[in-house]
Amino acid sequence: MAFTFQKNEDIQFCHDIELLKKAEVFKPLMHYEIKDEYNLVSLIEDPSKLEGWTTKDIYEHLQEKQLKKGNSVILDFENHHVGYFSMYLESVGSPMDAPLYIRLRFAQVPCELKYESSQYNGWLASGWIQEEFIHVDELPCDLTLPRRYAFRYVEITVLDTSPKWQLVISNPQIKTKGSANLNTLKNKSIADADLQKIYDVGVKTLQDCMSDVFEDGPKRDRRLWLGDLKMQALANYESFDQVDLVKRCLYLFAGVRQTNGRISANLFTKPRIIADDTFLFDYSLFFIGTLYDLLKAHYEQEVLADLFPIAKTQMDISLEYVNEEGCFIESEAYPLFIDWNEDLQKDVCGQAIMILSLRQFIELCTWMNEDSTRYKEMLEKMSSYALGHLYSQEEGLFVCKDGNINIASQTWMVLAHVLEDAQNKELMQKSIKKLFPIKNVATPYMYSYITEALFEAGLKSEAIQFMKSYWKKMIDLGADTYWEAFMPENPSFSPYGHPMISSYCHAWGCAPVYLIPKYCPELLIHS
Amino acid sequence: MAFTFQKNEDIQFCHDIELLKKAEVFKPLMHYEIKDEYNLVSLIEDPSKLEGWTTKDIYEHLQEKQLKKGNSVILDFENHHVGYFSMYLESVGSPMDAPLYIRLRFAQVPCELKYESSQYNGWLASGWIQEEFIHVDELPCDLTLPRRYAFRYVEITVLDTSPKWQLVISNPQIKTKGSANLNTLKNKSIADADLQKIYDVGVKTLQDCMSDVFEDGPKRDRRLWLGDLKMQALANYESFDQVDLVKRCLYLFAGVRQTNGRISANLFTKPRIIADDTFLFDYSLFFIGTLYDLLKAHYEQEVLADLFPIAKTQMDISLEYVNEEGCFIESEAYPLFIDWNEDLQKDVCGQAIMILSLRQFIELCTWMNEDSTRYKEMLEKMSSYALGHLYSQEEGLFVCKDGNINIASQTWMVLAHVLEDAQNKELMQKSIKKLFPIKNVATPYMYSYITEALFEAGLKSEAIQFMKSYWKKMIDLGADTYWEAFMPENPSFSPYGHPMISSYCHAWGCAPVYLIPKYCPELLIHS
Repeated sequence: MAFTFQKNEDIQFCHDIELLKKAEVFKPLMHYEIKDEYNLVSLIEDPSKLEGWTTKDIYEHLQEKQLKKGNSVILDFENHHVGYFSMYLESVGSPMDAPLYIRLRFAQVPCELKYESSQYNGWLASGWIQEEFIHVDELPCDLTLPRRYAFRYVEITVLDTSPKWQLVISNPQIKTKGSANLNTLKNKSIADADLQKIYDVGVKTLQDCMSDVFEDGPKRDRRLWLGDLKMQALANYESFDQVDLVKRCLYLFAGVRQTNGRISANLFTKPRIIADDTFLFDYSLFFIGTLYDLLKAHYEQEVLADLFPIAKTQMDISLEYVNEEGCFIESEAYPLFIDWNEDLQKDVCGQAIMILSLRQFIELCTWMNEDSTRYKEMLEKMSSYALGHLYSQEEGLFVCKDGNINIASQTWMVLAHVLEDAQNKELMQKSIKKLFPIKNVATPYMYSYITEALFEAGLKSEAIQFMKSYWKKMIDLGADTYWEAFMPENPSFSPYGHPMISSYCHAWGCAPVYLIPKYCPELLIHS
Repeated sequence: MAFTFQKNEDIQFCHDIELLKKAEVFKPLMHYEIKDEYNLVSLIEDPSKLEGWTTKDIYEHLQEKQLKKGNSVILDFENHHVGYFSMYLESVGSPMDAPLYIRLRFAQVPCELKYESSQYNGWLASGWIQEEFIHVDELPCDLTLPRRYAFRYVEITVLDTSPKWQLVISNPQIKTKGSANLNTLKNKSIADADLQKIYDVGVKTLQDCMSDVFEDGPKRDRRLWLGDLKMQALANYESFDQVDLVKRCLYLFAGVRQTNGRISANLFTKPRIIADDTFLFDYSLFFIGTLYDLLKAHYEQEVLADLFPIAKTQMDISLEYVNEEGCFIESEAYPLFIDWNEDLQKDVCGQAIMILSLRQFIELCTWMNEDSTRYKEMLEKMSSYALGHLYSQEEGLFVCKDGNINIASQTWMVLAHVLEDAQNKELMQKSIKKLFPIKNVATPYMYSYITEALFEAGLKSEAIQFMKSYWKKMIDLGADTYWEAFMPENPSFSPYGHPMISSYCHAWGCAPVYLIPKYCPELLIHS
C-alpha cells in the first residue's frame, strides 16, 4: 500500500522498550518446506487469462536440455510460493572456458514474463523487479540465490556460455519460508464451489504474506501496514488463528511512536524495527479497530492494558481534526488513504471511520473501566453531523461536501452504523442502483469493505454475488493468490504504471477468508 | 591466448597421479593486501591516451555524496589490482522502502567505461565482461563481491533507490590476492628511464598474473597456457624468482596428458585440474623449452628425471610431422599458434621452432645421459632443409612455401640459430629494411620474439629502440600493465571484435623483464 509518497524525514520517533520486548516474545517460528515439483512450460496466448497470457506444459526433461547462449527455459512450480530458489548447474562439452552468465526472472503470473525490465517506465522503484543477472565462475555448482522471491514461475535464460560448452540444469527447487503453520490451519469446507475456491485462494494469499510480521505483499513492499494488518488479522482468526503474530504487529506499532504519540502507517522490521515516516489518518485509527477485533476474538486483559494508552492517543490526536460541530476536517498533512484514487472525495469516509473508531474505542474504555463520557459525546456529535449535513434525504445517499456521491462514502457509513439497519439496507440498495457496476475502484481492499457493507446491510445474496464477481474473476484470470490491484472493467490496470512492479500476492485481498464464515455460517460444512 | 576455437570433446586424458601430487606440493602460498587509497574521477577526452580517454580527479568526498537513481561515481585505485572489492553502503533520508539496485563495472583502462555491455557484439563469451547487477535488500551493509576482478577503476551506478532515500558509499577497498611475493622481488635499477619504466610495468604485469598458477590474464581466460608460461617463467627468474610456481605449472601439464602422451595447450585448475581440448604444435614443443629454461636457471635432477619422458613424448609426436627430407608439414589437426593472425604463413616458423626445440631437447638428453643420436640427425636434416629450401640467397631472407616473406619466419629462424651469427645479423638487418615498420602484428607475444631476435642477431640498439617503440608506447597511452593485444599502427585494434573483452593485463607482455637483464646487463645499476 502506498500511492503518494510522504517524506517526513525530520519526524522523531521514540522507542518504547517494554512494548518492543513483548513484540519480540511474540516473534513467530519460521517454517520451511522444499518444493521440487515443477513442469517445463512455454508461454502461450489465451485471451481468457490475465493480459492474454498463460502457460502450457512442454513435455521435456530439464536435465536433458543442453542450453546454449540465448536459450531459455520456464519452470512452473504449480502454485505461488515465497522463498529461496536453488538449482544444480553443470557444463557439458569442452571444459568450461568462460564464466556462465545467466538471467533469472521470477514471476507470479505468466504475463510478467512478457515484459523486459529495460522497458520498465513505472514510477515505483525498479529494484522490486524480480530479476537477477548472475555470473558463475566454476561449474558444477549448487546455486542458491541469497534473496527471497515470491513466484510460481522461474525463467532461466543463458546469456552466455562459450562456443565450447553448454549448460545443464537439474534439481531446481524452492525452500519456502514463512510463519504460517499449516498444522494449525482450520480448513473450512464450504457448500458453494465458487466460495470454496475464493476462500482457499484467500487462505493461500494470507499464508504467503505471513512472515516475521504480516507483510502486505511478499514480492513488493514486504512490510507491515496497519490497514492491511486489520484485514489479515480478521482472516487469520478464521484460518491459521496465529494470535501471537497479530499481537506482535500491534506491539510493534505501539513500540515505535512519533514523539507526540502518533503511530506510523507502516513499519520495517529489517535490519531493525523502523517506523516509516508515512502517516495516514485512517490507518492510525485502525490501531483501535485491530485491537478491538483482537480482543473480540481472543480477549486478554494484559494486551488491552498495554495497548489501550496507544489507542487512546490515536483517538485523541484524531479528534483534533474534528471541528466544533462534529465535522471531520481533512488535512493534507495527515491524509486519509481510503483507497488508491487520488480523485476520490474522502471527507465522508473520514467522518464515518471516526464514528466507527469511536464506537470501538468506547468499548475498549468499558473493558478498561475508563471513563468514556467525552468520547460518547463526540460519537453523538459526529453521528448527528453526519446525518444532518452529509446524508441527503433527497438522494437517500451520503454526499461529500463538494456534492460528490461515491461508493466509498456509503460503504464506510454503513460499516459505521450511523443509520438504522433498515436505512442501511435502503442505502446499499440505492447504491447498487445508482453506483453499480462500480467503476474506477482498483483494489481488493476497497472491494472488501464494499462487500462487507452489503453483508452488514443485510443484502447477503447481493454481497455473495458481488464477491464472486470480483474474487472469482481473478481466479478465472489465473490467480493463485489475490492481487494487490484488480479493476474488473480493466484487468490490465496497474496502479504503478507498469505490471512488472505489480504485486500478485497481496494480503489485503484475503478478506473473503473472514467475510464468508462471518456472514455465511450456514454454508460451512462441519465434518 | 586463443583465436580459433578447437573442439575435441572426445579426446581422452589420463591423469598421472604422482606428477599431480608433486604439482600440489609446489602450490603457492597466497598473499593478500588491502588497497583503500582511491580518488574519485571523471572520464575526460584525451587524444594521447588509449581510444582517446583518460580520467581526471574530482575533488569530492565519496561518503558525502547522496546518490539517487541514475547517479554514478568512478573510483580510481591508482594502479591495476587483482582481487576482491568491497564497500560499505548506507541509506539516508526516509527509511529504505525498496531494494537498492546498483550496477558495478570494473575497468582496467578508462576507455572500457565508454562502452555498454548491451552493445557488445564480439564473438568471445560476454560473460567475461566485468559487470554486475546487484540488489541489496537491507542497508546498511558491508557489500563484498564474491568474484575476483582485475581492475584499477570501479564505476558504481545507482540503478534505483526509491524517491524517499539516497545511497551513501564509504570505505571502498580491494583485497588483492596473488602468489607473487613482493618480499622476494629482486628490484632492478636500470640506467635508462624508459627501460626502467618498461621493466617496472612488466614486473607489475607478471605479478598480477601470478595466482595458483601463472595465469595468462587475470581479467579474461585466467588460465595456464604453455606459450605464455614460457615467457612468464623467464621473467620470473629475473624478478620474483618463485621457482616452485614454474615447477608446479610444468608438473600440471605433465600430469594430465592425452592418452597418446600429447599435452594440452592450456589447463584449468578450478574446480579441479582439467586439461583443455585445445592442442597447439608450438605450445607442446615449448614444454621442452620451458623445462630447458628452468634447468638453466635452477638445475634440479629430480625435476629433469620426472619431466624428461614427457618432453621426449612431445618431441617424438612432433617428429611425426616432419617428412623424409626434414621438412615440417603443417596439419590443421595440430595447428601452430605463432601469433594471432589467421593469414600468417607459418610453415617456416614451424620448421624453426622444431629446430630450436631439437637443440634444447638434445641438451636435456645430455643431462639425462640419454642417447640423442636420432635427434641430432633430425636437427641436422631439418637445418639443412631450412637452409636449402626455405632460405632464399637472392632475398637474403626465409621464404614460406607459398612465396610469402614475413617477420615471424625470420624471427624464429634467428632464434633457432640456423644461420651463422653474422648471417643472422644480416638477416635481421635485411628484415628491418624490408619488413619494418611492422604491420599487422597485434601481440606483445610476437613483438617479444622479434625483439629477442634483434638482440640475438647482435642488433642491440635496434632491439632497444624497437622495444621502446612498442612497450613504452603502451605506457604512454596509459598502461599500468601490458595489454594482451596492441598494434601500434592501430591502437584501437581488438582481436576479439570488441574492447570490452580485451585483457589489459596479460602476462605475455612481460618479456622485457627478462630481455633487459639478459641483453643489457651493463644498464643494471647494482646498489
